[in-house]
Amino acid sequence: MAQIQPQDPNYESRVRASFARQQAMQTMGASLTLVQPGAVEIELPFRVDLTQQHGFIHAGIVAAVLDSACGYAAFSLMPADAAVLSIEFKVNLLAPAKGERLIARAAVKRAGRTVTVCTADAYAFEGEQSKVVATMLATMMCIRGREDLLG
Amino acid sequence: MAQIQPQDPNYESRVRASFARQQAMQTMGASLTLVQPGAVEIELPFRVDLTQQHGFIHAGIVAAVLDSACGYAAFSLMPADAAVLSIEFKVNLLAPAKGERLIARAAVKRAGRTVTVCTADAYAFEGEQSKVVATMLATMMCIRGREDLLG
Amino acid sequence: MAQIQPQDPNYESRVRASFARQQAMQTMGASLTLVQPGAVEIELPFRVDLTQQHGFIHAGIVAAVLDSACGYAAFSLMPADAAVLSIEFKVNLLAPAKGERLIARAAVKRAGRTVTVCTADAYAFEGEQSKVVATMLATMMCIRGREDLLG
Amino acid sequence: MAQIQPQDPNYESRVRASFARQQAMQTMGASLTLVQPGAVEIELPFRVDLTQQHGFIHAGIVAAVLDSACGYAAFSLMPADAAVLSIEFKVNLLAPAKGERLIARAAVKRAGRTVTVCTADAYAFEGEQSKVVATMLATMMCIRGREDLLG
Repeated sequence: MAQIQPQDPNYESRVRASFARQQAMQTMGASLTLVQPGAVEIELPFRVDLTQQHGFIHAGIVAAVLDSACGYAAFSLMPADAAVLSIEFKVNLLAPAKGERLIARAAVKRAGRTVTVCTADAYAFEGEQSKVVATMLATMMCIRGREDLLG
Repeated sequence: MAQIQPQDPNYESRVRASFARQQAMQTMGASLTLVQPGAVEIELPFRVDLTQQHGFIHAGIVAAVLDSACGYAAFSLMPADAAVLSIEFKVNLLAPAKGERLIARAAVKRAGRTVTVCTADAYAFEGEQSKVVATMLATMMCIRGREDLLG
Repeated sequence: MAQIQPQDPNYESRVRASFARQQAMQTMGASLTLVQPGAVEIELPFRVDLTQQHGFIHAGIVAAVLDSACGYAAFSLMPADAAVLSIEFKVNLLAPAKGERLIARAAVKRAGRTVTVCTADAYAFEGEQSKVVATMLATMMCIRGREDLLG
Repeated sequence: MAQIQPQDPNYESRVRASFARQQAMQTMGASLTLVQPGAVEIELPFRVDLTQQHGFIHAGIVAAVLDSACGYAAFSLMPADAAVLSIEFKVNLLAPAKGERLIARAAVKRAGRTVTVCTADAYAFEGEQSKVVATMLATMMCIRGREDLLG
């Protein structure tokens, strides 16, 4: 997706500034490891306080990271004055989310004026070994002209 | 859904014990406020450290609470030796998740031997006023005979 | 949902006229059996030429009827000059779709200016006995100002 | 996905025989154009009697073809005595489904003993030009030991 031409040449700083305001991502310890036009990667180190009853990362936490990755992949292609909101997402859990860290990789599947559709995969890493543990198909909305919603 | 006959008469303590092991729910400050056969309610007080960039509860956090509610609604009807895992879920965000607290209400739509389908709504409360802010349709799996997965 | 005030008092004839242009519904033998503000019902008599390999109505045919029901439930609340398009839908198959006829009942969950979210259930009828066989959660879009897309 | 080792060396004839029993696919005029281990392609020539109100292929028909493609991609990796059923699927409509023909390409994302997750894209072709018009994320179930359900 890297060849997509962003509408806003400052897309990367706009994505990074918005992500920095997502306190939920900071609370989880997630960081933005890649920002390209239409593609975003978020890393989440394993933490026991994010687990479900069997000691795997909670499916909702995996979804949160995938959702942020999808949202910012969509946002990277939006105009400079836009805000992004999740309309909906669906996630399939493919394997237990365990290991040292999780990486969510999102890419825009189709960018429309109002609606952008993204896909994302979450990989669990144990050293250099990785395994896909979840996949998301998400719909994002571009909001404009709302001064109360920026980024 | 309250008339459904649970297979395990100790369903409530089993659900509560498993929820107590979901460290992610504790980290978020979520608590189990209702457990009935096939129906579960989870409450999440608003916390700024769970927000996205506009100050609303992050969609992924909303999804996490809905997913736990669906999982335990399904689990309440499973046999005593079963474990529950999320196969997949889909959530629509209907309105900004803001207010004093969020309540997720899940109910079993169809309980099968292996697969259980649940629906859930999340309501944002401001005093006694409430508004539905998200809805989930989820598929849960009943796992048996796995001593490494209990609850 | 029947108390919702439609924006267009002629919502019913607008829905019926658009449904009549859905040749796929005619091909399947589906008919519109109820139109209310925010709620629509479509009936599909069982036909062996709509089945999958085990003799049940094909999941995609069930989805088609649920999707049309959701689309027209949303459309019934839209302004007179709007068109409706499906952004996405998710359907869970709950039981084999067999019997004499299928009824899909859709209702608007949240109607927004651009995006409307609907839920729908499909019931299989054998005489007066009925059983829910599928459930849908769908996102519909309101399109305006497109003379090539009406209804 | 072509390198995946099928459990049943006769997977292709098993898939083709089951598809031939899907009367809904015949009714629509769909044909199976590729069967590989974990990957299936179905082609649907454009027909006006499968359209929605704007003259595009009905979203439910697109979903039906994507669902069959996902189901048979999953089925190709199942043991010889298994049957396949759709648990659920979600489809995003990305562009109007118009053109001369539609091709649905499905691939297995993760094959489990009970649950298989597939993704699929639908492409609309106008001569040699093609465009992705829909994408699906689906969950399929492997059923064994049911003599009433074969294939």
